[in-house]
Amino acid sequence: MSRRKPEKTRIARRKLLTGGVVLAGGAASAALTAARAVDDNLPPHLPAWMKEQGAPFLSPPYGQPSPFEKNVIRRPRAPTPTTTAAASMTPWQNLHGIITPNGLHFERHHAGVPAIDPDQHRLILHGLVKRPLIFTMDDIVRFPSESHIYFLECSGNSFWTGNTPQSTVQHTHGEMSCCEWTGVRLSTVLHEAGLDPQAKWMLAEGADAAGMARSVPITKALDDALIVYAQNGERLRPEQGYPLRLFLPGYEGNTNVKWLRRLKLGDQPFQTRDETSKYTDLMPDGAARQFTFVMEAKSVITFPSGGQFLREKGFYEISGLAWSGRGRITRVDVSTDAGTTWKEARLQQPILAKCLTRFRLSWNWDGTPAYLQSRTVDETGYVQPTRAQLVDVRGLHSDYHYNAIQTWQIAQDGTVSNVV
Amino acid sequence: MSRRKPEKTRIARRKLLTGGVVLAGGAASAALTAARAVDDNLPPHLPAWMKEQGAPFLSPPYGQPSPFEKNVIRRPRAPTPTTTAAASMTPWQNLHGIITPNGLHFERHHAGVPAIDPDQHRLILHGLVKRPLIFTMDDIVRFPSESHIYFLECSGNSFWTGNTPQSTVQHTHGEMSCCEWTGVRLSTVLHEAGLDPQAKWMLAEGADAAGMARSVPITKALDDALIVYAQNGERLRPEQGYPLRLFLPGYEGNTNVKWLRRLKLGDQPFQTRDETSKYTDLMPDGAARQFTFVMEAKSVITFPSGGQFLREKGFYEISGLAWSGRGRITRVDVSTDAGTTWKEARLQQPILAKCLTRFRLSWNWDGTPAYLQSRTVDETGYVQPTRAQLVDVRGLHSDYHYNAIQTWQIAQDGTVSNVV
Repeated sequence: MSRRKPEKTRIARRKLLTGGVVLAGGAASAALTAARAVDDNLPPHLPAWMKEQGAPFLSPPYGQPSPFEKNVIRRPRAPTPTTTAAASMTPWQNLHGIITPNGLHFERHHAGVPAIDPDQHRLILHGLVKRPLIFTMDDIVRFPSESHIYFLECSGNSFWTGNTPQSTVQHTHGEMSCCEWTGVRLSTVLHEAGLDPQAKWMLAEGADAAGMARSVPITKALDDALIVYAQNGERLRPEQGYPLRLFLPGYEGNTNVKWLRRLKLGDQPFQTRDETSKYTDLMPDGAARQFTFVMEAKSVITFPSGGQFLREKGFYEISGLAWSGRGRITRVDVSTDAGTTWKEARLQQPILAKCLTRFRLSWNWDGTPAYLQSRTVDETGYVQPTRAQLVDVRGLHSDYHYNAIQTWQIAQDGTVSNVV
Repeated sequence: MSRRKPEKTRIARRKLLTGGVVLAGGAASAALTAARAVDDNLPPHLPAWMKEQGAPFLSPPYGQPSPFEKNVIRRPRAPTPTTTAAASMTPWQNLHGIITPNGLHFERHHAGVPAIDPDQHRLILHGLVKRPLIFTMDDIVRFPSESHIYFLECSGNSFWTGNTPQSTVQHTHGEMSCCEWTGVRLSTVLHEAGLDPQAKWMLAEGADAAGMARSVPITKALDDALIVYAQNGERLRPEQGYPLRLFLPGYEGNTNVKWLRRLKLGDQPFQTRDETSKYTDLMPDGAARQFTFVMEAKSVITFPSGGQFLREKGFYEISGLAWSGRGRITRVDVSTDAGTTWKEARLQQPILAKCLTRFRLSWNWDGTPAYLQSRTVDETGYVQPTRAQLVDVRGLHSDYHYNAIQTWQIAQDGTVSNVV
């Protein structure tokens, strides 16, 4: 057998489920060991990286992704006048499962990322409490702790208007991420201070130059709210609030105040800049909805999604994410014909409350144009709306809480684009 | 009020659950806003990082830990003659929850980390199959996928001998990590090739310079085995097998072959170098146990643990990890008196099979010497043994599968050390 015999004469291609290549009888076994290699350039033979020692261990001691994954990065949400009042987005088109690696968690800053020395950081708790308190980070970490895998979504994630056919899922749904968060139940800290019975709202203020601050109902503060110091095992990343943040499971991202320095209890909302000038929902009648905290159920297909490409017809697994700020996801249906017919997707276990749920559906693409949609239902029975249903109620003047069904178009040539 | 009045005259300290500082009445409210700041050096006042814009977003696009966490890194297991046949360990003393961030996942290499171009990588499937196959990475990723949070532990994790009083939990238990892994059920790929009924064992070979290879029973290959391409959402890290690895939930780490290039089906074990010269257990009678795959139930306290320090008596939360290669953890008990008395720890939900379970127990340290231990039970009823029980059966000539109860000593001065 010639050492330069081309691959196509040696390996008979035969299409299987995913296009794996069948090795034809004798030729196959001839190709499978180094001892019988016939061409060093053919894949069954020893590749170059088996012929020399690899990189040393601990290079580096804190590991980094493969250089071949250099395009898997956060990207800007939109052009902004400054780089400190800006947002970046998680590349869901490149991710699998439900965990977001910390290096890819979306960002939203109002005055950049402060460089906080944890030994100098303090959390102040005052207002309608019996004992005003100041905590160091050492104090906080000594409290009883909890860990939960929760999604976190900016209420501005997904656009009411302004998408283009070129929009990827990073652009349409990338201001949402999901990590394991560890911290202290906020109620533990509040009870340490002793709540005044008049306390109905809590102000949370960040230690950034914006002094980002939001009002939180006391019912939420005493429910599942956490003050969090760790994210996917390690301490918070600087852009996620290092060394301490508020975490309000299921609530819009902005209320999960980062670089948390102050909690003040009061008898009414504090009407901060961030809940009057922003983070309200302008309705068709001109009224503004305020304190619309909960992120309603939502889902999106991450594969195939905008900017991706199906190289040929045949088997594909449609895959995506569903989540609800009200609890567990109970169902996801997928349509490949723009919502005319639906099939129930498989849900990856475990299904956790206020956490991403990965869904998957096997699909044979026949090579004709297709329109892919997903629609989720949560444990309250809430059904994710169509765009028409959502706009009918909310109009088009809002910047927040857009959770309509997303449509991706697959063209006959296999290109995938956003349906505006 | 003087602008330089010292903190101690303004804030009355009063010990609470964790030593938080009580703010005394009027002085407290005077200190809590920038407008009424009395001393820029006092913590309630605006810290320096609130007086200037922070760092820009996307700095960098793939995020990194805070510079203040620079000591949270992997560290070598032991001195080795080369840096390519070596192991590094996860710093559990610094971590929270159950997820290991990818940058801190332990490493074990036999010939360094190959730099594999995923477009050039191939997986070969041959031997006792009806259709030998070659897969590209694109082929693999098109198969139906699954995601699971599983621990991965080197069978050499924890030492039979050679620990010192200075050993930290990174040294004693750091060759174990836990991630969300995504990939294809191995049975899907094997059925694609069509198994010969004579196939009872499978060889898995890596594309590193060591050609690391292990034999796997067909029962495991057809059970929950995966071929994995993603770790905590993103593609595998180079040192974890990029672009493809075998994952055998609950099996010793070495069998989870990284940089997976070849699977060969046979009717008996292949007796590779890595299962004859290594990864066998020498018993007291001189016999060697071979193919001892399953990692039995084990637990360890990560706080307080070796090298840490309790600055004062009072409330602490004892916290640690438990896991079993046979399924779910059902119970963890904690002793503070070297095993004389035990208390049942709280287990963080959800409790997943072949995954870490975080346990916690509230504790008031009275300031006298204490000996902390944890003991876990898994769903098969297996109870983690004492060192004496384990050595009685296994002797002291083995390098692998040490899962005895760990003891940390807390001295009267608050220092924590390993009990050898």
